[in-house]
Amino acid sequence: MNQREQETLVNPHQLQHVCSQLYQKVGVAREHADTIAQMQVLMDLRGVPSHATRGVPGYVRGMMNGDTNSNPDIKLLEDNPASALLDGDRGLGHLVALHGMNLAIEKAKATSIGIVIVRNSKHFGAASSHAMRALEHDMIGFATTNGTGVNVAVFGAKTNSIGNHALAFAIPAGEEPPIVLDMACGAAAAGRIGTARMYDQKIPFGWGLDENGEETDDPSKVTAILPAAGPKGSALAIIMDVLCGPLGGGLMGINKAYNSRNAPPEKIATAHFFLAINIASLTLVDQFKDEMDEQIRTTRKAKPRRGFDRVTLPGEIEWELTQERRANGIPLHKSQVQALEELADELGVPIPWK
Amino acid sequence: MNQREQETLVNPHQLQHVCSQLYQKVGVAREHADTIAQMQVLMDLRGVPSHATRGVPGYVRGMMNGDTNSNPDIKLLEDNPASALLDGDRGLGHLVALHGMNLAIEKAKATSIGIVIVRNSKHFGAASSHAMRALEHDMIGFATTNGTGVNVAVFGAKTNSIGNHALAFAIPAGEEPPIVLDMACGAAAAGRIGTARMYDQKIPFGWGLDENGEETDDPSKVTAILPAAGPKGSALAIIMDVLCGPLGGGLMGINKAYNSRNAPPEKIATAHFFLAINIASLTLVDQFKDEMDEQIRTTRKAKPRRGFDRVTLPGEIEWELTQERRANGIPLHKSQVQALEELADELGVPIPWK
Repeated sequence: MNQREQETLVNPHQLQHVCSQLYQKVGVAREHADTIAQMQVLMDLRGVPSHATRGVPGYVRGMMNGDTNSNPDIKLLEDNPASALLDGDRGLGHLVALHGMNLAIEKAKATSIGIVIVRNSKHFGAASSHAMRALEHDMIGFATTNGTGVNVAVFGAKTNSIGNHALAFAIPAGEEPPIVLDMACGAAAAGRIGTARMYDQKIPFGWGLDENGEETDDPSKVTAILPAAGPKGSALAIIMDVLCGPLGGGLMGINKAYNSRNAPPEKIATAHFFLAINIASLTLVDQFKDEMDEQIRTTRKAKPRRGFDRVTLPGEIEWELTQERRANGIPLHKSQVQALEELADELGVPIPWK
Repeated sequence: MNQREQETLVNPHQLQHVCSQLYQKVGVAREHADTIAQMQVLMDLRGVPSHATRGVPGYVRGMMNGDTNSNPDIKLLEDNPASALLDGDRGLGHLVALHGMNLAIEKAKATSIGIVIVRNSKHFGAASSHAMRALEHDMIGFATTNGTGVNVAVFGAKTNSIGNHALAFAIPAGEEPPIVLDMACGAAAAGRIGTARMYDQKIPFGWGLDENGEETDDPSKVTAILPAAGPKGSALAIIMDVLCGPLGGGLMGINKAYNSRNAPPEKIATAHFFLAINIASLTLVDQFKDEMDEQIRTTRKAKPRRGFDRVTLPGEIEWELTQERRANGIPLHKSQVQALEELADELGVPIPWK
């Protein structure tokens, strides 16, 4: 069966509507349910299914079983002119992050910069979902999270000692698509290594270590992921962990994994860090955007290497895919569609594409 | 001749005193000259000679020939509660950065966060010199600069299209040394490739491309450096360029290189970006430092891989070297000592170690 035969083409508006209704059925307010669903559909549009609506059944069932709070009481723990610390009350990370990034944007409007840390949250999906919220305000956005366990070896180590933390930047342009980076600090995502294992494929040396601490090309032997670019990715992972964890009163990943048995839940739960920079407070927005457009166009003219058809900017391929899928629909794996349909049936949500 | 025979052991206090006097002779105020010399000696102590006092003769001669302004009139162009834009008036980057980082720290005291961009500057040495200034204020520091030309190929390109921009984070700990990352976004520094060329050594594949866009292990054939971790280092380099350049009203590196002939000098000169985060505004400083100490000690216990004696944290080896060299002196290459002595002789500065 080829890939297309395993997929169903779904209309993005219908998909968003179904997901929003599912969240509403388990107690999420309409306004928030719509925005969470929009963030998750955006990742399907961008071609990042691992952080998109594939997660919806798991998130909704987490609310049904009480593990995730569907109507969290998000509290302001610290409040400064340019920063704040929030408690997410075990809410879905997307919803908690929405509050966090919105507050960072409000602070950036007032003081030029906003930083918001949110602790006691859950998985927030793709870091870029949140960084990109700054774009419509003509701001630069940044988001990171400590949401993974320790599955990366710190540089020089052979055992897992840091999380594969994601970080994202979003920078507005004018007529050109925004610059969007969404990266993990490890050499590869755990999911990619898992996929190679499923399909019985080799992985490149440099992605992971076996139990003896040797690099391996066999995905089934990987016991620790290597950091991206050795000491650089390793240090960035540690720093992202500090920004989300100890800076908000929480623990570092390695302490959660090995030392945290007696720590209170809010110190070990997932946390996020958001930054918004208000461009208009520092320079002319039009001039900034013109310069971004100019560099994007000039960079595209760079000669491609062998193996590349063309040179693209960070987030450009995802932006093009978004336009194409908005017009033609999103291909979802049939097993994902089935899981959504089963949950919709259970909760009495009609499926428009059936 | 072995390495030790090519070196002279110099007392760090004497070295700092000589460098400060050299700067004072060409018009730098005593207070600033002392601080600049201190920053540069610190990089010798940390084992980073490429960004240390080796540069002093060049910096001082740049002031003598008028290329660098020894007594710049640093102007506040934009001022917000949490951010500012400065014009460095072609001052030495270290001096301009000192003003920039100090202002970021002042703003962080008032609002929790400070971001300062400085344009119209010169080379500021090591990014970590400036990020580390936040440490004594119990703040997290970040610094980046666009000070290199375009010598890195954007991901997928075979031609130079972005600078090998440096970024640095500094995070205070309690009893343990601070976490300090100072990295370039390219796979290797141009200087390391140059050193391999001088010594007729091979370089690893993955550092650079030859004129056909193929990876090469021959340093003499490198025409473009590769980005660290492919798309990740490439995107980070672009983003650092945006933070220093367009966000402060300046140009991107690629536009300076290919499109900027008619741009005014202040838009194409070197620029810097500084960030300070006031830990006390978000959490208890003692608790933060205890958690940092705890994670540093736990991380060190990770089992080392083959080829590593032990696992160290970012900046730990440099911190240990600093203690050793403070006690025993800094080994400087004789050619560097000679260049300093010649300049000192020319400007009438006594050399205490002669």
